[in-house]
Amino acid sequence: MMKSLQNTAQQLRRLVIRMTTEAGSGHPTSCLSCAEIVAALFFHEMRWDPSDPKARNVDTFILSKGHAAPILWAALWEAKAIHEDPLSLRKLDSSLEGHPTPNNPWVKVATGSLGQGLAAANGIALANRLDGIDARIYCLLGDGECSEGSVWEAAQFASLNHLSNLVAIVDVNALAQSGPAPYQHDIEVFSRRFQSFGWETITIDGHDLGAILSALEQAKKTGPTAIIAKTEKGKGVSFLEGKEGWHGKPLSQEEMEKALAELGEDQAVAPLEPRRVGHYTPPPQQKKPTPALAVDYALGDQAATRDGFGNALKKLGELLPELVVLDGDVKNSTRTEYFAEAYPDRFFESYIAEQNMAGTALGLAAYGKIACATSFACFLSRAYDFIRMAGHSRPSHLIFCGSHAGVSIGKDGPSQMGLEDLAMFRAVSGSTILYPCDGVSAERLTQQVTKAQGIVYIRTTRGKTPVIYANDEEFPVGGSKTLCASKEDKFTIIAAGITVHEALAAYEELKSKEILVRIIDAYSIKPLDQETLAKAAHETQGIITVEDHWIDGGLGDAVAATVSALAPVHRLAITAEPRSGKPEELLERYGISQQAITRKILELMD
Amino acid sequence: MMKSLQNTAQQLRRLVIRMTTEAGSGHPTSCLSCAEIVAALFFHEMRWDPSDPKARNVDTFILSKGHAAPILWAALWEAKAIHEDPLSLRKLDSSLEGHPTPNNPWVKVATGSLGQGLAAANGIALANRLDGIDARIYCLLGDGECSEGSVWEAAQFASLNHLSNLVAIVDVNALAQSGPAPYQHDIEVFSRRFQSFGWETITIDGHDLGAILSALEQAKKTGPTAIIAKTEKGKGVSFLEGKEGWHGKPLSQEEMEKALAELGEDQAVAPLEPRRVGHYTPPPQQKKPTPALAVDYALGDQAATRDGFGNALKKLGELLPELVVLDGDVKNSTRTEYFAEAYPDRFFESYIAEQNMAGTALGLAAYGKIACATSFACFLSRAYDFIRMAGHSRPSHLIFCGSHAGVSIGKDGPSQMGLEDLAMFRAVSGSTILYPCDGVSAERLTQQVTKAQGIVYIRTTRGKTPVIYANDEEFPVGGSKTLCASKEDKFTIIAAGITVHEALAAYEELKSKEILVRIIDAYSIKPLDQETLAKAAHETQGIITVEDHWIDGGLGDAVAATVSALAPVHRLAITAEPRSGKPEELLERYGISQQAITRKILELMD
Repeated sequence: MMKSLQNTAQQLRRLVIRMTTEAGSGHPTSCLSCAEIVAALFFHEMRWDPSDPKARNVDTFILSKGHAAPILWAALWEAKAIHEDPLSLRKLDSSLEGHPTPNNPWVKVATGSLGQGLAAANGIALANRLDGIDARIYCLLGDGECSEGSVWEAAQFASLNHLSNLVAIVDVNALAQSGPAPYQHDIEVFSRRFQSFGWETITIDGHDLGAILSALEQAKKTGPTAIIAKTEKGKGVSFLEGKEGWHGKPLSQEEMEKALAELGEDQAVAPLEPRRVGHYTPPPQQKKPTPALAVDYALGDQAATRDGFGNALKKLGELLPELVVLDGDVKNSTRTEYFAEAYPDRFFESYIAEQNMAGTALGLAAYGKIACATSFACFLSRAYDFIRMAGHSRPSHLIFCGSHAGVSIGKDGPSQMGLEDLAMFRAVSGSTILYPCDGVSAERLTQQVTKAQGIVYIRTTRGKTPVIYANDEEFPVGGSKTLCASKEDKFTIIAAGITVHEALAAYEELKSKEILVRIIDAYSIKPLDQETLAKAAHETQGIITVEDHWIDGGLGDAVAATVSALAPVHRLAITAEPRSGKPEELLERYGISQQAITRKILELMD
Repeated sequence: MMKSLQNTAQQLRRLVIRMTTEAGSGHPTSCLSCAEIVAALFFHEMRWDPSDPKARNVDTFILSKGHAAPILWAALWEAKAIHEDPLSLRKLDSSLEGHPTPNNPWVKVATGSLGQGLAAANGIALANRLDGIDARIYCLLGDGECSEGSVWEAAQFASLNHLSNLVAIVDVNALAQSGPAPYQHDIEVFSRRFQSFGWETITIDGHDLGAILSALEQAKKTGPTAIIAKTEKGKGVSFLEGKEGWHGKPLSQEEMEKALAELGEDQAVAPLEPRRVGHYTPPPQQKKPTPALAVDYALGDQAATRDGFGNALKKLGELLPELVVLDGDVKNSTRTEYFAEAYPDRFFESYIAEQNMAGTALGLAAYGKIACATSFACFLSRAYDFIRMAGHSRPSHLIFCGSHAGVSIGKDGPSQMGLEDLAMFRAVSGSTILYPCDGVSAERLTQQVTKAQGIVYIRTTRGKTPVIYANDEEFPVGGSKTLCASKEDKFTIIAAGITVHEALAAYEELKSKEILVRIIDAYSIKPLDQETLAKAAHETQGIITVEDHWIDGGLGDAVAATVSALAPVHRLAITAEPRSGKPEELLERYGISQQAITRKILELMD
């Protein structure tokens, strides 16, 4: 068996070299260092079914060092799990991309931005635990990526949550992209660090199959376990092994021939089969439509949209058993505490570690959960690379909620004001953005976010605002609400969230001056209600957008791009560095208050 | 002396309570836990000059746990370093904001997004070392924020760079915002972690002034040193001490009276004076204008803008002794390796830890350096919260360069494609964004970024493009280049970076069909050249923007908002999830190629 595994490792090396030389790019040496580890996992250790990428009662492999994608494709090819020509690597429309993406059915989360795999593995481990699936998760990391703080956020989460089925394997090949990795072959550094984060650790020679198998066996006893494997980058080829200057560099045809000669031919010994498992039929999904929430406000009630979000999330917890919530130590502010109290088993305190929170949520979403990760809007910027990669991972859906949006939070000052979140989430693959302005819309839109596809962001406000919608109002994604309209409207004011109320107040003031304006609540920031906006652009002399966000990248930009040429768009938004003060003072100081809107309209009427 | 220090600590507590009760918000209990630590630093340990916030040869204090701002203001008040009424805390236009910002002259970097102070402290330590200033940096962290991976990125950088003058003090008060901190009073966890990241550690009772002073003394022997201080949140007030539910909550008037009674009155013992140091006169700044770079290309040469950037940075290293460069293990890709080889003492390999890289760059910039931090454009999203906070810190300037922008990188696939960087940097306080399209503009704009104010972002491209500008062409910030124009222009194509060349090719093709279009290189994405764009909007029937970026938040949005109502704006940009392939295949597939532009114009002509 050991001989066959060694053969398989060599076969993976040969294939990787052929694939990358054919592609003319890729990272062969980063694959060669982990050939024994990958062979041991795919052809001995892991229980999986090469015929069924959707099976759930199987072990999971996450390639956190995503640039080693060719060896993942090679292993899947050798296991007959894929039938696409390995030599199509990196070619347009091949699922064998340069870094793993879900275009290949075996990839559950996209990797390639380093330091993200372990957080996703946390989420998968949680999903398995919630579903009663006793499967293991193996996450392969590089030594270079252990410089990413997110690895340590994930390590802390795993140990605090006793994710004993989780095994991290660090391929310490000592060479990073642009030079030696910071600790080169000092594997004890990694061991001490994982231990200090509450993990069991095992240090091994990563090319010794016996040591690998024994470590994987030992890892079953307790966990989470980190196997720190000392390896050589470019292992198996004399002119690559331990040599600098070969990162991300394919071999020339001639070098390839030389390398293949060194690696030897296929041996007579047949490659091993993976440990197959029986096919797993997931429980039938509840396909019945979720009943509408019972929403209970009176018009004019004062309610914070963050409260509406929290209330709705709790109610949805009853209706949607797959709903899982994570929060970064601000559950009493985002109001996820309501859900946490009602469903403690489906709430995960993620502490002040937003990157791991986002990555864990992605892992949960990739394994069938409706995951919702929340913090202050500004602190989601901490996880932007994770959110970006979540977009590329295309989960069926994954929810983020950012509370405390904008200068309207008041006295805490700029560090706590989410002023870039709309720009950030608009520029994410396949995203949807919703922004309620009152209790009713907050609750209804929270139900929408649990249904929408892809990455869904909901933005909430700290302070209370009056309820303006009836309890049975519907808020479809891509819609808007025209709150005031007449044939005499001079201008259209497009607002969302807190500025809806400033706009409504401006409406009254302008009306008293016999100036009529149209007011639209653009609660669906992405997609926008193009039809209604175009109509307003046609029917009025101009559009004024008002938002509690930087002027760039938010509602104003989105509207200007949508109604381009139909009407002039005047953007009221934050343009100067904000500071501490009372909410109403700040709305006025930064030009998005009722008075600022009125002034702007009067100026335009001149 | 010890009695005076204890008195001072109590006085800080009293003041904090009065300030937060007056403000009606703030975090008094988070201040109470560190009163002895702050008293020991400001009134015994630190060498500083309360009359001179600009002094450089003095010790630095960074309040990483920024929500404890009131105790910083209280200490500065007691030291007579500020003269603003402490009771103005959190009021509009007071420099005593809810979290520290540079509106107060003693604050060099804004804090309040947790886990960022230590990275800035790294940069300050480097700046001091480069300037031959033997001063110490004290960074006060909370235990909760140690869940942020960025703390461990910073810890690794400090030990790898032997920043022996750096002291981190962790105020382990065991209570986070929404519940107990993950390790409560287990101070050994923090000690083991810092040790595993190469630090000396000392564990103490954080309310024992003798222990604090002794630890601070011991920290001078070697370093970096972490002092792990076990404290009680709310220390000194019986009904607050160690109690949950008091985070971010001021005392009522009645509670305040009770607390002040417990804390006792001012003692007869006079408060200590800080250890003053002589005034430090910084060396005269080189005020002479930097000579223009010698740029040497021939029209039509093939050159990558990342190469132009790297070349220029190296040349600027000679002209600007204060230029310092950091890179996240991709220096051979971003081309900062040219600078690194020429000026190894001013280059800092930051490994794969973009958050710390950004924070360290901010610290350097805050202490007078021209700091430039580089990575792939996509990986700067990892540091977005740090970049956001850098904006709020308002350094005189701080440069980020993102290479490998857009789908034009080709085969590596979506994880490596910067498609959100323009949206991200546009939504940063006081940012400037430049985007060269050829070797000449890359070199010239690199010189511009070393001069511009605030946060400056330069975006570069992986592949080679032809040189289209003469070597002496000037590229002012806020400008643009009209590359083709006539009175017969039907449409205007606005491009930047790689798409300039697609637009020029489309121009030729359209010209062969006797359709003339205007071509504008919008190399200054923020600020845009409003005048030239408005003129083009007036003089042609419509505008087509073409960019290698998500359709939302980038050039198209910026142009649409700028020329709103003057002309229709059609945005060609990435709208579908991209994948691996050849650059030219991807430009075509995602609709930003020469052919796509030509098709769009022909469609509009119909």
